[in-house]
Amino acid sequence: MQEPGSSECSSIVRPANEAAARDLRRVPIHPDHWYPLAWSSEVKRGHTHGVRFAGEPIVLVRTASGTVFALEDRCAHRQIPLRDGVVDGEAIRCCYHGWTYDCTGRCVNIPYLGRERLPNGVRAYPCRELEGLVFVFPGNPARAETTPLPSLGSIANHAYKTRRYARDVACHYSFMHENLMDMNHQFLHRRVMGQMSARSLGRRHGENWVEVDYTLDREGGSRPLGETVALGQSAPGSPTDNDVMTVRTDYPYQTLQIRNPKSALMLDLWAVYVPLDREQRTTRAFGLVSVKRPRMRVLLDVAWPVLIWFTERIFKEDRWAVEREQQAHDEQGADWNHEVFPVINELRDLLRRCGAQASRRVIPIETPVAPGD
Amino acid sequence: MQEPGSSECSSIVRPANEAAARDLRRVPIHPDHWYPLAWSSEVKRGHTHGVRFAGEPIVLVRTASGTVFALEDRCAHRQIPLRDGVVDGEAIRCCYHGWTYDCTGRCVNIPYLGRERLPNGVRAYPCRELEGLVFVFPGNPARAETTPLPSLGSIANHAYKTRRYARDVACHYSFMHENLMDMNHQFLHRRVMGQMSARSLGRRHGENWVEVDYTLDREGGSRPLGETVALGQSAPGSPTDNDVMTVRTDYPYQTLQIRNPKSALMLDLWAVYVPLDREQRTTRAFGLVSVKRPRMRVLLDVAWPVLIWFTERIFKEDRWAVEREQQAHDEQGADWNHEVFPVINELRDLLRRCGAQASRRVIPIETPVAPGD
Amino acid sequence: MQEPGSSECSSIVRPANEAAARDLRRVPIHPDHWYPLAWSSEVKRGHTHGVRFAGEPIVLVRTASGTVFALEDRCAHRQIPLRDGVVDGEAIRCCYHGWTYDCTGRCVNIPYLGRERLPNGVRAYPCRELEGLVFVFPGNPARAETTPLPSLGSIANHAYKTRRYARDVACHYSFMHENLMDMNHQFLHRRVMGQMSARSLGRRHGENWVEVDYTLDREGGSRPLGETVALGQSAPGSPTDNDVMTVRTDYPYQTLQIRNPKSALMLDLWAVYVPLDREQRTTRAFGLVSVKRPRMRVLLDVAWPVLIWFTERIFKEDRWAVEREQQAHDEQGADWNHEVFPVINELRDLLRRCGAQASRRVIPIETPVAPGD
Repeated sequence: MQEPGSSECSSIVRPANEAAARDLRRVPIHPDHWYPLAWSSEVKRGHTHGVRFAGEPIVLVRTASGTVFALEDRCAHRQIPLRDGVVDGEAIRCCYHGWTYDCTGRCVNIPYLGRERLPNGVRAYPCRELEGLVFVFPGNPARAETTPLPSLGSIANHAYKTRRYARDVACHYSFMHENLMDMNHQFLHRRVMGQMSARSLGRRHGENWVEVDYTLDREGGSRPLGETVALGQSAPGSPTDNDVMTVRTDYPYQTLQIRNPKSALMLDLWAVYVPLDREQRTTRAFGLVSVKRPRMRVLLDVAWPVLIWFTERIFKEDRWAVEREQQAHDEQGADWNHEVFPVINELRDLLRRCGAQASRRVIPIETPVAPGD
Repeated sequence: MQEPGSSECSSIVRPANEAAARDLRRVPIHPDHWYPLAWSSEVKRGHTHGVRFAGEPIVLVRTASGTVFALEDRCAHRQIPLRDGVVDGEAIRCCYHGWTYDCTGRCVNIPYLGRERLPNGVRAYPCRELEGLVFVFPGNPARAETTPLPSLGSIANHAYKTRRYARDVACHYSFMHENLMDMNHQFLHRRVMGQMSARSLGRRHGENWVEVDYTLDREGGSRPLGETVALGQSAPGSPTDNDVMTVRTDYPYQTLQIRNPKSALMLDLWAVYVPLDREQRTTRAFGLVSVKRPRMRVLLDVAWPVLIWFTERIFKEDRWAVEREQQAHDEQGADWNHEVFPVINELRDLLRRCGAQASRRVIPIETPVAPGD
Repeated sequence: MQEPGSSECSSIVRPANEAAARDLRRVPIHPDHWYPLAWSSEVKRGHTHGVRFAGEPIVLVRTASGTVFALEDRCAHRQIPLRDGVVDGEAIRCCYHGWTYDCTGRCVNIPYLGRERLPNGVRAYPCRELEGLVFVFPGNPARAETTPLPSLGSIANHAYKTRRYARDVACHYSFMHENLMDMNHQFLHRRVMGQMSARSLGRRHGENWVEVDYTLDREGGSRPLGETVALGQSAPGSPTDNDVMTVRTDYPYQTLQIRNPKSALMLDLWAVYVPLDREQRTTRAFGLVSVKRPRMRVLLDVAWPVLIWFTERIFKEDRWAVEREQQAHDEQGADWNHEVFPVINELRDLLRRCGAQASRRVIPIETPVAPGD
């Protein structure tokens, strides 16, 4: 599953001066990856659905034939959002003056202008559907073909039951990665999880990834029901201390996997954090939590509401924390964090290294001005 | 009604480099015109009414004798709004320390200071009432005398019935002018108007004005009742295709007139768009829609609610569109519009040419500091 | 009670060019004084209470033993507010990863890190309780020892009954000082107080203070009940014109005292205005109004609700005025005030002279980076 622990581990030192000077919370996510921007079910046939990636408005259009395409969400004429337009067969028609675009963004009709004088149109984004998610490639379209869609964990495996969620969080995506990877924050969940403490077993990394293993020890209180649902029905009284949790950031995606002492994968979380606004201070977290079904498969279905409640509570507490971190950063104007946990410092270097170079703006496609009528 | 189509028409070319470099959405409206800032009925005898012109706070005061005057809406002492003051005969008294101003803005009393030491006071604006509107001249007062009040269409003609409206719209005034003048946007009103298409018959322009003629062709659906009310009771089945609509911007005012095939004026709209905030991103549209009464005059009164509903719907759709245009401009930080319709490009040049040079700020009137007591 | 009127009175001239160039509304309050940041009752045993001083977040912690201490309200680790933490004996524990701080701000425990590698922690503020208020010294802590807590008027004197209040006002603290000291603003309270006019009897000042005496003359209407409650039961019809009101700013505190013709102190107000935000455009006014009890002490208790209503109304009108002043300043971007009343110009000089030099920002305590694990 993972690349072997590498010997250059010790060569990862504190960020060099240049890198250290760069505030991680201002590093834009790299656009040359596939990001989910909506659930397939949100984009209904013959309708549009407006979304955002890092401030860029994007319209998803499902045509009469059921195909989804993605365009810059503005009419080339007067910048009205195309999401308010009318789907016309396999094209989208702006609601204001009726300019019409096909799936490549080409302007194919202006009702009051001859066809020989049509302007260039708007930008199109590569777009694919996978497992109920609409993925868009917001970066250089030439790289979309050679960049694979991500593997979505155990979602396609019938031995698992999957919960899907999407939540907006008012923070930079990097706080989300750090929150999940630093399991020393169990104190935050003390009311839901009881008194747990994480013990780091070791970490590994490569060019585009970093991962860490933990065991979680119960220091007091009893095991919550939600955890039992998620991790399986151990015999009463048996220790779960030998379950191993691995958290991995494989840029830009993140996974959390829990294996039991027999190395069976009990819980498999896949997540990605999509920046919504241009400043990348708001993020939509998409997550897929797959839980191994027990032999009596119906047991998991019965217990499912407990797991939902449990994950909602945990997510709510984490959201509170990362939003406070973002607030502090906004107020302090810089990153005052004093991180002492080595894997988190490695993760921060990774996110800096793999991030985009600078905030980009969409430039309008140049359209030659039509001569007078 | 209009100046004849001029031969210099062809000399209007695309904006020169300098002018093109100027973003129309940042051109302030020219203050050396008469602008309506309130309905007369809003300024009650013995009371004040606070308004704004392009961010300048202005207080309208109707004195005990019924006259209206307009002052800068701040006390020279501590900048408290005079609109919260008390009308005292023909003067206005600030509510905080009781400083008192006459209709010229002169400070005529400070209760706790000798009259020989009064400071200079505040700025006064030329102010006149016409047809139930309070007009103010916010620019150079020396030019007010030689600048005529606008002609308000058919409002004073008893052969017409007039609807008055004022609506705030969150956009630059230029979007309002362009919206009304570009009749190719009938697609926006497809649910209210049915399938209409405009055909441009020709355009004319002069130094301070531009105008265009249209016929509107029905492509499908039946004629809406509101349109019938507004344009008159043609014999059933008769085409209205020969009605001619003329839209004209005569800086800074705008008119829309519809004449029937016999050249009778059936509908006469006068409108003006008054910037409210300093950035001129919010506008109050004042409009007067005059409709020719039929021979059975009562018919129009009976049908009036339909006309009101109809115009409200149309206005609501137009407001939605121009506010989306402003939003796009705010986000893009520049004018990305790709205008292909010639009369709109001429209108844009006109609005740039006639606009003010730069955003201005009111400077306080210098008042010599009173010596110690 | 007051320093004698000094001979250097005439040497106070209009602010010199340099000082005049400094906009009073941008002068930060001087931090080297004791400021109340909360009522003692707001800081419950075993709990925290988050406050602000000029934008600095401060957490007040009441420990298990009942002591209150004040720290910078952020964890040194990831900037989460400590106010959301858990009081643990005499220490406060951050709710996220459990870092723990003592009353000096020292980090005394990180659960997952050896004690020999603890970082430095966060800033502590000198903190004392007096008469139900929690005072904090936000400036240079070395000066706290030699700076006395303020005298709080007649609050400890059983011959007086005291009303305490705290109200947030959206303006710079200087507007509050000027509002109370300029008694010519009785016109503002005409509906509550009737027609009163203040007459200045004289003023005095020193290095850190300025004060002025007034008599208030009734020009019309009858004496309001609230005023009777506050100033005592004069025999019916007897003039109160010989009551003397003294308003004094003794930086940064302010007092208003009313003495009857026999020089007995009838009303004693102590107030202070604590900036909340970094721009010092929002202020929390703390006030203690002490009223001399009449011989039949119960009379004052019975009439107390009237006094509360009366002071609330007056405060509401004053708040309206000072918030309008701040709004005007925000809009005009500078101080356009044209002050003609000499004591207010002296007060303005005092507030400039005693204020801080420039806006300061809290710099995080440098913590040496822990080496890798």
